Amino acid sequence: MSENKPLVGIIMGSNSDWPTISQAADILDSFGVPYEAEVVSAHRTPEKMYEYAKSAKARGLKCIIAGAGGAAHLPGMVSALTTLPVLGVPVESKSLKGMDSLLSIVQMPGGVPTATFAIGAAGAKNAGLYATSILALSDESLSDKLDDFRKQQRVKVESMKL
Amino acid sequence: MSENKPLVGIIMGSNSDWPTISQAADILDSFGVPYEAEVVSAHRTPEKMYEYAKSAKARGLKCIIAGAGGAAHLPGMVSALTTLPVLGVPVESKSLKGMDSLLSIVQMPGGVPTATFAIGAAGAKNAGLYATSILALSDESLSDKLDDFRKQQRVKVESMKL
Amino acid sequence: MSENKPLVGIIMGSNSDWPTISQAADILDSFGVPYEAEVVSAHRTPEKMYEYAKSAKARGLKCIIAGAGGAAHLPGMVSALTTLPVLGVPVESKSLKGMDSLLSIVQMPGGVPTATFAIGAAGAKNAGLYATSILALSDESLSDKLDDFRKQQRVKVESMKL
Amino acid sequence: MSENKPLVGIIMGSNSDWPTISQAADILDSFGVPYEAEVVSAHRTPEKMYEYAKSAKARGLKCIIAGAGGAAHLPGMVSALTTLPVLGVPVESKSLKGMDSLLSIVQMPGGVPTATFAIGAAGAKNAGLYATSILALSDESLSDKLDDFRKQQRVKVESMKL
Amino acid sequence: MSENKPLVGIIMGSNSDWPTISQAADILDSFGVPYEAEVVSAHRTPEKMYEYAKSAKARGLKCIIAGAGGAAHLPGMVSALTTLPVLGVPVESKSLKGMDSLLSIVQMPGGVPTATFAIGAAGAKNAGLYATSILALSDESLSDKLDDFRKQQRVKVESMKL
Amino acid sequence: MSENKPLVGIIMGSNSDWPTISQAADILDSFGVPYEAEVVSAHRTPEKMYEYAKSAKARGLKCIIAGAGGAAHLPGMVSALTTLPVLGVPVESKSLKGMDSLLSIVQMPGGVPTATFAIGAAGAKNAGLYATSILALSDESLSDKLDDFRKQQRVKVESMKL
Amino acid sequence: MSENKPLVGIIMGSNSDWPTISQAADILDSFGVPYEAEVVSAHRTPEKMYEYAKSAKARGLKCIIAGAGGAAHLPGMVSALTTLPVLGVPVESKSLKGMDSLLSIVQMPGGVPTATFAIGAAGAKNAGLYATSILALSDESLSDKLDDFRKQQRVKVESMKL
Amino acid sequence: MSENKPLVGIIMGSNSDWPTISQAADILDSFGVPYEAEVVSAHRTPEKMYEYAKSAKARGLKCIIAGAGGAAHLPGMVSALTTLPVLGVPVESKSLKGMDSLLSIVQMPGGVPTATFAIGAAGAKNAGLYATSILALSDESLSDKLDDFRKQQRVKVESMKL
Repeated sequence: MSENKPLVGIIMGSNSDWPTISQAADILDSFGVPYEAEVVSAHRTPEKMYEYAKSAKARGLKCIIAGAGGAAHLPGMVSALTTLPVLGVPVESKSLKGMDSLLSIVQMPGGVPTATFAIGAAGAKNAGLYATSILALSDESLSDKLDDFRKQQRVKVESMKL
Repeated sequence: MSENKPLVGIIMGSNSDWPTISQAADILDSFGVPYEAEVVSAHRTPEKMYEYAKSAKARGLKCIIAGAGGAAHLPGMVSALTTLPVLGVPVESKSLKGMDSLLSIVQMPGGVPTATFAIGAAGAKNAGLYATSILALSDESLSDKLDDFRKQQRVKVESMKL
Repeated sequence: MSENKPLVGIIMGSNSDWPTISQAADILDSFGVPYEAEVVSAHRTPEKMYEYAKSAKARGLKCIIAGAGGAAHLPGMVSALTTLPVLGVPVESKSLKGMDSLLSIVQMPGGVPTATFAIGAAGAKNAGLYATSILALSDESLSDKLDDFRKQQRVKVESMKL
Repeated sequence: MSENKPLVGIIMGSNSDWPTISQAADILDSFGVPYEAEVVSAHRTPEKMYEYAKSAKARGLKCIIAGAGGAAHLPGMVSALTTLPVLGVPVESKSLKGMDSLLSIVQMPGGVPTATFAIGAAGAKNAGLYATSILALSDESLSDKLDDFRKQQRVKVESMKL
Repeated sequence: MSENKPLVGIIMGSNSDWPTISQAADILDSFGVPYEAEVVSAHRTPEKMYEYAKSAKARGLKCIIAGAGGAAHLPGMVSALTTLPVLGVPVESKSLKGMDSLLSIVQMPGGVPTATFAIGAAGAKNAGLYATSILALSDESLSDKLDDFRKQQRVKVESMKL
Repeated sequence: MSENKPLVGIIMGSNSDWPTISQAADILDSFGVPYEAEVVSAHRTPEKMYEYAKSAKARGLKCIIAGAGGAAHLPGMVSALTTLPVLGVPVESKSLKGMDSLLSIVQMPGGVPTATFAIGAAGAKNAGLYATSILALSDESLSDKLDDFRKQQRVKVESMKL
Repeated sequence: MSENKPLVGIIMGSNSDWPTISQAADILDSFGVPYEAEVVSAHRTPEKMYEYAKSAKARGLKCIIAGAGGAAHLPGMVSALTTLPVLGVPVESKSLKGMDSLLSIVQMPGGVPTATFAIGAAGAKNAGLYATSILALSDESLSDKLDDFRKQQRVKVESMKL
Repeated sequence: MSENKPLVGIIMGSNSDWPTISQAADILDSFGVPYEAEVVSAHRTPEKMYEYAKSAKARGLKCIIAGAGGAAHLPGMVSALTTLPVLGVPVESKSLKGMDSLLSIVQMPGGVPTATFAIGAAGAKNAGLYATSILALSDESLSDKLDDFRKQQRVKVESMKL
């Protein structure tokens, strides 16, 4: 976790989500984006969630990545409590493999937006990249790093052998 | 709506849910169970939801029927904020026909229970009946009325002509 | 299993459901709620199911937790045979991962309510908690225990390290 | 409905299922197979269902066509109460379009078989034909009629113009 | 496999289906019902399938159990080629877990019936039992054995310990 | 329908599929590709299907477009009976909206390929275009027409006003 | 459409998507956010899409809202061609009701993020709000307007009558 | 890989798709059809994809097999950039088991056709066979080999022992 004042908040419903959601943190680390990460559960720590979301903007956060599985209410509820951009990551659930998580996050009613990413680790990684792309709108060096990330990614794919 | 002190709270995310959720109210009316009904949106009035749920028990409510559609977070969030029995009714959504509503309500994580009923009007009616059956545990006359309801229902089916 | 006169009946279609459904029993144990648990199959012991459901109220049960998988008819049929609150737990099935169990339980027609919980162990645990919350309506000490359970749960989440 | 002693029992959970299930009756009529048809609801008339299924064989029925929608328990419960062949017809439901009906009927556990047919009118028609094919095993004239039915069907298709 | 003239034909698309479909054969063995079992593929041996289905009745078969997975065409195509009762068993497929097999078998158009059973081994077992129940219509001793099977099954469930 | 010797065969399970499948014919007409179109049902005219598929190559057909709905066996069975390229079009079904048609067509086992297109009219149109692209491999003027079709399509989209 | 230099690009695969996607434009209009809107099809105008996405950043766009239905490739392909934040809106499709659109947009592989919103008009409205919230990170007056929007929304819900 | 000038191009989004897609290559090898195979990612190497697709025809390719998983855009985008026949293979994805891959590939809009095959290895094998059947239209010896392949396949099935 970075030592600068965090720009991105990463929250998740349980520490069992961390193996998935840490992919977002890894991306932010690699781009040098300061962030904070902690467990905030919509269902088990609703007051903490209220405080977290209501104070996020004043604390200097620019966006919030929220991961949750099953009846995944965390991303949408945080979206209800702040106008900061919220990025929801559906964690793969045991029985329904994240289809429940996905629909619980993405099908938000008009008026309270949550950006949703793919189920599981790919979604977490992409939430990290997307948060970076939002910050890059006012940070040219970050924007250059994103271009560089894409370039390296392209080179890596182009050099794949079968 | 009954005039006695309400025992059941009925809430829903929008007044567009009322044609569905009113089936629960109709049942409570027919059993003489006092209730209150209002619009409380998890996403658009989160503070009101918070206050509603936190004060429900002290206000004398015995259980709460909560209807919502799409990324339906109202029943689960109310469950997170009270230990009263919460009865969730998935409202049929436009595109996914309530499958999103159902999974968003029923797939709650262990520790915060929400009782879920069928998608749409049948679920609302049954939530009304279930709330009545909970109250009937300590109200013999209500219990008798439930037996009578079943009897009439049986007679009605038995007299159906093809 | 508790020695007092049981207040909650726990039934399931097969002893292979016990690893899932025992989560409900564990909760009741931890709250000191007396219960009974046995195998009752809608399809293989229909007469026993009839007798079980029809006698439940007279035997002093306050509610019934019924777990079943696949074409899961046990919760709904018990609901048809008693006006006690029935709590249905969809057990994860082999091929369809409990989606069949869930729909078979939750999509009850208007007139015969079954409260449905999440697929698998989380659902069983929550059925146990929900039964407790029903009983707590007329048992203040149980209500306090539920508050305490939520508090401990909150503390546990708040102390989670990443 | 035929006047001879019925060989096929047709039951359904509600008279609202009749527009679908009557397709089975129409087929039996066209083959001259005597049948009876009535409303028997697993959830609203469980005792009647019990008696119907338990007495079916002694009353001379050779098989039972059971139609139901949503959490469709009628076909499986009748199968549990008789060893006669039961033919289940999933009626299209409002929200989930019969996917719930289908899974509730077809996913029976090993040991209690129910034959399942397509959702809706096509399934009802085919249940009627299948019942006829069972009876035709010991009725050569019925078998000939089935051959004839197929022939006419083939001719009808072959003469279709685009 | 029994030595008497077979009354039931068991076919499947590949010998990889045998671990599933053999459950039907085991049931027939236990009831003493003579059967034959072989691999017949709708897609890879279509001529053999035509001959098998067209000759089935003349060869004395009373019904045909057909198992297949994925785009499972065998049960429906055999149904198209004979008026004998056909019992379709959806074999669990790798990616879609048998949902494709189930829909390919059960959603037959009106006019050509196939009886469908549950996905996988439970469905195969039940197809064996259902075939027996069809034969039992004209074989009292088989009918008694079915009653006995149910009784033993009931006793086994009733003696289950948790 | 064109008067030259047909290069493409268009078949479908019922004339009720024609409003969908005619989109393929319209495309072939517009490209001047000679074709034939008729009703061939896997289930109701299996012998005709057999003959149609077995004779297709000798009759000069280069590929076959087959449309079907529900338990859609026509495309796969024709694929089993010829090595010509077969193009399957899933027709939208009443209850399951073509998901059954799609899975019944696309999930063919390894060894017997069927090319599958989108559910409904878009799929039929694309089957017509794909058949044309196959023929265009040995017909330069047809290839040019395809380029032209794409160009016109592009121009049409580019001129769309909001 | 606003006359200032656009900050948000709105694109969609066809003008038939406009009734849905115009909800995003309406939101931007109401917030005074300058935008441009046009038809860009991934499949029918791939070169235009390429140029649109590659030039977007240099042209001053801050983010791109892309709506598409069915095999919806537009949002993801634009994401592949720019590092600007892309907001994908799944348009409801005819047969599969937008489930295909949703999965085609949301299930992007790690490395190329697309933010996804709900199926249909609610998703389009929320994409408009989300784009505004991104711009509001560096525009305090826009941030105030978002707070005001939420306030008005809350008041509207609180004044709903049943 | 064959040494002659390739007639079939095989591309896939990542080398992790190769264990699946190599089944297509194995088939082409066994038929002596020259092909090329490489990694081309719609999302990570979009320019390479543009060049690959735009140059394919001039380079002598007759058709292109494209495999991809999740939000699988490669087959459809290549189809948008060439009028050669494109064969899409949905690779099984981690959470949704290829249902996302399938819908992303098969639900193409009218005007830009992609032929779709089964999810996973069976689909890849069949894409190889289908490509061969397209080439066989103008190569009699290849056509004979296909007949032979079917014959061997039939013999293999016919000799399967249970």
